[in-house]
Amino acid sequence: MSKLRVESFTFSLDGFGAGPEQNLNNPLGVGGNALHAWAFPTRTFQQKLFGNENGETGVDEDFAARGFQNIGAWILGRNMFGPVRGPWPDESWRGWWGENPVYHMPVFVLTHHPRPPLVMEGGTTFHFVTEGIVDALERAREAAGGKDVRVGGGVSVIQQYLKQRLIDELHIAISPVLLGAGERLFEGVNLPALGYACIKHQATERATHLILSRQ
Amino acid sequence: MSKLRVESFTFSLDGFGAGPEQNLNNPLGVGGNALHAWAFPTRTFQQKLFGNENGETGVDEDFAARGFQNIGAWILGRNMFGPVRGPWPDESWRGWWGENPVYHMPVFVLTHHPRPPLVMEGGTTFHFVTEGIVDALERAREAAGGKDVRVGGGVSVIQQYLKQRLIDELHIAISPVLLGAGERLFEGVNLPALGYACIKHQATERATHLILSRQ
Repeated sequence: MSKLRVESFTFSLDGFGAGPEQNLNNPLGVGGNALHAWAFPTRTFQQKLFGNENGETGVDEDFAARGFQNIGAWILGRNMFGPVRGPWPDESWRGWWGENPVYHMPVFVLTHHPRPPLVMEGGTTFHFVTEGIVDALERAREAAGGKDVRVGGGVSVIQQYLKQRLIDELHIAISPVLLGAGERLFEGVNLPALGYACIKHQATERATHLILSRQ
Repeated sequence: MSKLRVESFTFSLDGFGAGPEQNLNNPLGVGGNALHAWAFPTRTFQQKLFGNENGETGVDEDFAARGFQNIGAWILGRNMFGPVRGPWPDESWRGWWGENPVYHMPVFVLTHHPRPPLVMEGGTTFHFVTEGIVDALERAREAAGGKDVRVGGGVSVIQQYLKQRLIDELHIAISPVLLGAGERLFEGVNLPALGYACIKHQATERATHLILSRQ
């Protein structure tokens, strides 16, 4: 059965999955880039995000790499797609990632405001889903053709899927930084009550990696 | 200058420093014992808490041991001293630790309800402070005679001292368990805004250890 997975989702020591004040210059919120210091040097991120041949191997790389294995579709909250709020003023915003986004597969963007699909270079198509998280998951599963679906975030989208017990597995990284404010992934989410447990725990110099699984 | 330190304070992956429903059988709240699985096998905890000669050495032990180095007095919230709430019905409750408590030095217990000092075996005296956290700190500093003062907790007491920037250093351990509910150490506390930063980060199989310091 195709799984719904969260991968490489990183939060700070004080529990924040993104910094405050997301805007065009701070897609991850203020301070949010420091969260991902474990991921940027990895071979996976270097190749996928920056087009570089090289990059570090090791435990951090192993966790970064698993996030792209056997994935057939993505689901994103609208704020992960861009900083535009409310009805789309026009179709000029085409994502944070340029004309050839990192996904190279169908991406389902949750929004309250309809918009035609956006076909990008390299195999990425953004589909805008206004019928809610269950509909988005069904469409993503179908598009994934038997592979897994990855929820990219943000915090609110992951929380919504968690509360309905729809997520099968989460890879979480805790970074040794303090953000002070922002959004907490586990705010108002009682993971043991929902049936989740930590089944793996491995730490490096740069992060503590966890695998949480629905039992 | 004598420091005010938090040591071996442990919280769960979902951020809870104690489980819910503290009572006589669950001094750390339900599930709270699992939090401290990193500490129990250490030589320091085996010796200090259980009177055993042996115990594990290594990184976990190093962090456990530093918590008892150069400490001249402790400060505890009343709930750490016991499960009794409201005015003391009598003087029968003498702490969780039996007649010879683990402290072996003056311990200042924050409470709204006065009570005479309680002299125990082995050098521990519990002093009940009703004049607030600053007064407790002054008295503890004086009693410590130049050594540091350790705040044992709980969450609310640490938060009160943090918000007044009175804590110099915190050793925090994050345990690979989920508690689901309880008290969050960093709820409503913006650490970077208060001047704290993570200056050390070291992980083991059982916990991720952090040192936070006021800059």
